[in-house]
Amino acid sequence: MFEILTRCPETRARTGIINTAHGKIQTPIFMPVGTLASVKSVSVEELKNCGAQIILGNTYHLYLRPGCDVIDHMKGLHHFMNWDSPILTDSGGFQFFSLAKLAKFSDEGVDFQSHIDGSRHIFTPEKAVEIQSLLGSDIMMSLDWCIGHPADKGATMEALKKTTMWAERGLEFWRDNGKPNALFGIVQGGMYKELRSLSAKQLEDLDFPGYAIGGLSVGEPTEMMYEMADHTAPLLPYEKPKYVMGVGTPENLVELVGMGVDMFDCVMPSRNARNGQLFTSGGTLNISNAAFKMDEAPVDESCNCYTCRNYSRAYLRHLYKSRELLAYRLNTIHNLHYYLTLMANIRQAVAQGSFNLFKKSFYSRLECGLK
Amino acid sequence: MFEILTRCPETRARTGIINTAHGKIQTPIFMPVGTLASVKSVSVEELKNCGAQIILGNTYHLYLRPGCDVIDHMKGLHHFMNWDSPILTDSGGFQFFSLAKLAKFSDEGVDFQSHIDGSRHIFTPEKAVEIQSLLGSDIMMSLDWCIGHPADKGATMEALKKTTMWAERGLEFWRDNGKPNALFGIVQGGMYKELRSLSAKQLEDLDFPGYAIGGLSVGEPTEMMYEMADHTAPLLPYEKPKYVMGVGTPENLVELVGMGVDMFDCVMPSRNARNGQLFTSGGTLNISNAAFKMDEAPVDESCNCYTCRNYSRAYLRHLYKSRELLAYRLNTIHNLHYYLTLMANIRQAVAQGSFNLFKKSFYSRLECGLK
Ligand SMILES: [Zn+2]
Ligand SMILES: [Zn+2]
Repeated sequence: MFEILTRCPETRARTGIINTAHGKIQTPIFMPVGTLASVKSVSVEELKNCGAQIILGNTYHLYLRPGCDVIDHMKGLHHFMNWDSPILTDSGGFQFFSLAKLAKFSDEGVDFQSHIDGSRHIFTPEKAVEIQSLLGSDIMMSLDWCIGHPADKGATMEALKKTTMWAERGLEFWRDNGKPNALFGIVQGGMYKELRSLSAKQLEDLDFPGYAIGGLSVGEPTEMMYEMADHTAPLLPYEKPKYVMGVGTPENLVELVGMGVDMFDCVMPSRNARNGQLFTSGGTLNISNAAFKMDEAPVDESCNCYTCRNYSRAYLRHLYKSRELLAYRLNTIHNLHYYLTLMANIRQAVAQGSFNLFKKSFYSRLECGLK
Repeated sequence: MFEILTRCPETRARTGIINTAHGKIQTPIFMPVGTLASVKSVSVEELKNCGAQIILGNTYHLYLRPGCDVIDHMKGLHHFMNWDSPILTDSGGFQFFSLAKLAKFSDEGVDFQSHIDGSRHIFTPEKAVEIQSLLGSDIMMSLDWCIGHPADKGATMEALKKTTMWAERGLEFWRDNGKPNALFGIVQGGMYKELRSLSAKQLEDLDFPGYAIGGLSVGEPTEMMYEMADHTAPLLPYEKPKYVMGVGTPENLVELVGMGVDMFDCVMPSRNARNGQLFTSGGTLNISNAAFKMDEAPVDESCNCYTCRNYSRAYLRHLYKSRELLAYRLNTIHNLHYYLTLMANIRQAVAQGSFNLFKKSFYSRLECGLK
């Protein structure tokens, strides 16, 4: 499913193509998060115009709302939400960590309480694959046990062991059911390099079509996140796509690409947009800032997004301060466009053998600051 | 500025063209409400695609947020919000009635407290015109005193007298300042026919480019609203455009067109959309209804809007129940499309001399109910 096109001569960065039942995607890639069958505030046409090739759906959330019966009846998530390009779904593992109440982990799976109505549910590794198949996901994720930071080694080992056991069961279920979609394994192991090595080895032996490095961005310092990713990425099979889940800032993406990571997702561009924080080549700006009251300039002069082509900072500030619904949308369009253009520029730089030059220019523009 | 094209042989309905500095609009027309320089949740492109020819801005709201200094600096409301078609602005009169705290009415004008921060401001009839000119409004409204229902005759007379006095002063200011935009007078007189007659006569003598019937939809029963509009509309100069402010339901629009009204505005299609109430040819539906959980049909099979062309009731219900921002937008697009298509159909029927036939079919489809 994965084809490597070019390799950076100086770093582990590479470009490639992932083939899915809903088309090809170019890596390194960023996947906007469409938690509840919608990337908050934007339309599918706007996503495409921002350069989105694939989006992420959250299995935990979709399972609870609208529920599998609805999405099944509506012929899958693509049809339901009118998105005809690839979709990756997570397994719910991160939500059991961050959101579900009283999640209980056993060999069998996860017994959890809905964060919405407190109802009890069980996810097994087989069920996680079954639900994602029903959603019509192009890239599914194995059920994993995501552990927070800090966590002691024993607890981390316990989560790792369950993750491997579930990976094996999910994989068997997937192979038996022969769906056209892919299933990725998720490396755990917390902030312990030897456990990361162990998890990577165990999952490699299972021979997944792709691998994620999970359990990052769970409260650890950025340097520790980099250390774990940098340690883990090269342990995974070179020829398989590598995905770091739930990360991160533009700087994070640039660094992780250099470590050999191909895929990313994060709520940051969309969530921060809704909080008025906008990304630009010169750093972030808060659109509610009084300095923008009469500012006729677009958010970023060098940005070609719908928002920057049509609206001033003054207008965006007014909408945001007035809590107009259009504010969230115009801000989200800009931030997603920024992230997706960043990835396109990274791909181009890697393809041209100038990734390190790109990095240098990226950081020097950030240091120059806002215009 | 107004040209009558066709007249219904059986009712007072007519079609026409209003010429403004930002282009022509076809009447009878419905104007979506863009209170704070945005029709809530939708883009200007979506407004155009729904068939919007002119939108309404609220002078009171824009004066407070973002403020006249900002809009003046940004070269007017059209440029600020990226809307290149006509804009009508109200005078603030309705907001002094509905929103401002402790508004004090004197011969001079209205002294009011901001509903946002309690700051005190004064609107005079001259200032109301000055602000609207600065906004770049194509059709401005005279400062008026809108009185609620019920109101005794003495108080209603008092409001009427001030409204006429202010109309005269605003008109003089407008003529002296020779702007390319139009100024409409507003008839008051509450629910007293003789006061409506008096107000209409006084304003006719001032010779405005157009006239509004104000002070309706202030708490009176629908029949009383119809009675007042039916009484007042024919008293106003036939060759001038007639505008009923702040009304109403699809049925209201159909009835009022038959009384000779040319222009309408109302928050109903957009506000109700945000509350999940959608208009269809078979009546309204509440999208949160459990009956729509698995409903693959669009909101209205006969609707050609973006929402109905792309999304099911099941998806809209899910978005609405999950409070996804996209829900408000997709619902608003449908409702505005419904209102604007209704007006287009009315224009066509009047032009073809079949308005009464249209009315009959409109009501019989409503009676058939939802499919
Ligand atoms: Zn932009
Ligand atoms: Zn529709």
